[in-house]
Order: sequence, then structure tokens, then C-alpha cells
Amino acid sequence: MPLYKIEELPKSGLIEGYTAQFIHTQSATYSHVTVVAGAHLPVHHHVHEQVSYVISGEFELTVDGKPYRLVAGQVFVIPSNTPHSGLAITDCFLLDVFTPRREDYVAKGGVLI
Amino acid sequence: MPLYKIEELPKSGLIEGYTAQFIHTQSATYSHVTVVAGAHLPVHHHVHEQVSYVISGEFELTVDGKPYRLVAGQVFVIPSNTPHSGLAITDCFLLDVFTPRREDYVAKGGVLI
Repeated sequence: MPLYKIEELPKSGLIEGYTAQFIHTQSATYSHVTVVAGAHLPVHHHVHEQVSYVISGEFELTVDGKPYRLVAGQVFVIPSNTPHSGLAITDCFLLDVFTPRREDYVAKGGVLI
Repeated sequence: MPLYKIEELPKSGLIEGYTAQFIHTQSATYSHVTVVAGAHLPVHHHVHEQVSYVISGEFELTVDGKPYRLVAGQVFVIPSNTPHSGLAITDCFLLDVFTPRREDYVAKGGVLI
């Protein structure tokens, strides 16, 4: 059954204040992330290309040292190996798509297709 | 500037009733699709894996001959080379992610990163 309700996907804790619900396909990881207001994601980078949507709330994404305020209706593209960090301005719900699939996140759980 | 407002992305007509706003990255195509109620997408298939979200409205997706009703809060995964068709039950706004990037859609326009 390839139709999933996001709210029913298994939950994986990432870091304090960040809870992800993953779908891992053959070629990508779709990460639906609930973030608590004020939660901070330290600067990091990865080989995976990342495309981020804010579904609800307001999130500050800092990429290559520049801060951007993200709200619904926008798309952010983070190229491979680009340093980035995050801060939830309000409670948020995010969609992050990673290509290729993040095997480190596969190890954390979710649906694997 | 890697932050895009979806409403400002260039528009590409696909078939009657389907207008797409593309972002093509190195490894994927992100297709934001406005669909008019009643518009029908004929059965087709492609090598690209497709993951579909309904952002607003109601869309009937038929995959391998089985119909599914999609609304916001769901995710549908269409594996590579799986026949599918669509019908907009209401006016809809969809997000379809294709991996790898769809070169046939690159030829139709959008933002190429």
C-alpha cells in the first residue's frame, strides 16, 4: 500500500526538539519534521542534496553563514556539502527531501521502500 | 539565492488543466502543479521514482489500476516504471518529486540548479 498518512508514520527523535517521520525510497529520504519553538540545529553538512519546505510555522535556516527566514510557500535548495544550521522561530512542521537516500537516517527508523 | 517563492517560479503548461512550476536540482525535479477540477492525466509511466503530496484540494491517483483519493497530510510513492493516471476531483495544488531529474521536464522550463 503506497499511500501513507504522514501523522501515522513512525517517529524518530533526531536531536532535542526535532522529531522526524521518515519515508526512505530507493533514491531519496523524505523527512517530515516536527520542531519545537526555540530548538536549535547545530551547523553541519552532508553529501546529500537537501530541499526544504516549511509546511507550517517559521524557521530560520542559516546557509553558508547567511540567515534566511522560511515560511509556507517557499522552497530552499541546499547543495551537497554546504554548511547549514537551523532555529525554529515558532513550532514548525518541515519537509526535507534528501538525495540520495540518507543511510544514517535509515538506521534511525521510518518506512523503507 | 537558493530561497524561492513557489508562486514566483516560472510556469510551464503540461497538458490541458495542468500547469507546473519546476525546480530542477542535480538529482531531482520538484514539480509544483496547479490542476483545474476535472482535468485528467492519461495513464503513463516513467523510469523516475515519483513521490506525490496534495498540498490543497482532492486528487484521484490510479496506480497499477487501483484508484486512491489523495488529500493534504498524505504521501504517495510511485515506484519506477509503474503505470499511473490522475483526475482532479477539485482544483488542486500538488507537489511531485521525481528522482532522478526529469530531463523531459527540464526542456519545458523552470529553475535549473
